Amino acid sequence: MDRAFNFDVFGTCVDWRTSVARDVATALPEVDALAFATAWRAEYDPAMARIRSGARGYVPLDILHRENLLRVAESFGVEVPDIDALTAVWERLDPWPDVQTGVQALRTTGLVAPCSNGSIALMARLGRYAGLNWDCIVGAELAQDYKPEPAVYLASAKALGLRPEQVCMVAAHNYDLKAARAVGMQTAFVPRPTEHGPGQTSDLEPSEAWEFIATDFVELAKLVA
Amino acid sequence: MDRAFNFDVFGTCVDWRTSVARDVATALPEVDALAFATAWRAEYDPAMARIRSGARGYVPLDILHRENLLRVAESFGVEVPDIDALTAVWERLDPWPDVQTGVQALRTTGLVAPCSNGSIALMARLGRYAGLNWDCIVGAELAQDYKPEPAVYLASAKALGLRPEQVCMVAAHNYDLKAARAVGMQTAFVPRPTEHGPGQTSDLEPSEAWEFIATDFVELAKLVA
Repeated sequence: MDRAFNFDVFGTCVDWRTSVARDVATALPEVDALAFATAWRAEYDPAMARIRSGARGYVPLDILHRENLLRVAESFGVEVPDIDALTAVWERLDPWPDVQTGVQALRTTGLVAPCSNGSIALMARLGRYAGLNWDCIVGAELAQDYKPEPAVYLASAKALGLRPEQVCMVAAHNYDLKAARAVGMQTAFVPRPTEHGPGQTSDLEPSEAWEFIATDFVELAKLVA
Repeated sequence: MDRAFNFDVFGTCVDWRTSVARDVATALPEVDALAFATAWRAEYDPAMARIRSGARGYVPLDILHRENLLRVAESFGVEVPDIDALTAVWERLDPWPDVQTGVQALRTTGLVAPCSNGSIALMARLGRYAGLNWDCIVGAELAQDYKPEPAVYLASAKALGLRPEQVCMVAAHNYDLKAARAVGMQTAFVPRPTEHGPGQTSDLEPSEAWEFIATDFVELAKLVA
């Protein structure tokens, strides 16, 4: 098997915003759940940036999610009854409607694996929750670094036993594809125009001529076949 | 999900001996295929021992399998027409008859993942060939070392987001369970009395009082439920 698809997960495979808000609404009925989910997610990149820059050693995303939850709860002026239970919402994110069928279809043409900033532990549990049958899990934890650092994409292709050009990165985010292309991977853009809600302005269109551009994973499977 | 099962693969999940012999018989019709398979496998532990001792840095098992094939072919006085194609037979090993059903049953009670000396690339392809739906792949490559080094078991539990006592090592080999127990993991012995052929003398019985002892994976799933 000399071809693989690597998937971004948060936003590309799963709808983190409404899924996180759903559990926030239960755990913290006093807050605006969608605003809280958005604020939580907004802490994601700065937390990884400290690790990418070397200011902090690698820790798995689960720990960053937990730290970020504490910070956001404080800024919202609320106390979270069970920090660990709410942090684990990132293991219970609903897939976009085309994802299960699309990943199964893509799996007939190559290995399928998440190349996410999520840890192996997180991806394993989320994969099971979302009904995704990955062949294996690659991504940040293997490289002990975070996307879009080149090391993450390169470590992922290597772990799959493939050269970068044999691997296609699938993402809803242009920056992710740009980084994947820079190390020689193929690229597939699948926009998720409501990832950030109805008023989303980013990543509505491809920013470059990616090898594949599809409206969803089912269409992508047809394009690559 | 606070429980996991880690599986030894070669011998425990799959019948490497007859599967390797099957492809050897096709590629090298002039040799005794079972003897060749056994000789190839006999090079496995010495090759890893050099890495465990630190005499050689970590290289994935695929590379060791390839090197060992060249060595065994030379000792048999034969030339292998396509070294890479025959090396890949380790991705095409037949599962024991109870394994698919048993792993699915165990999966209802915890995460399931191979903790093998095989690489992620090898385990992903073999898992697909053998019809095993792993939640993720842990083992040697994560630790950059080989079983029975404690680092491999510890890295695997950590990658699953669990403490060693939350993980049960499933193996047909007492030495593997001994090493897993030494780091605090639970242990399950499933003998494979014909792994080495009809005259097998090793690992026919448990050498210690392992937490679980079952005749096959289906029985194991009942015991742990």
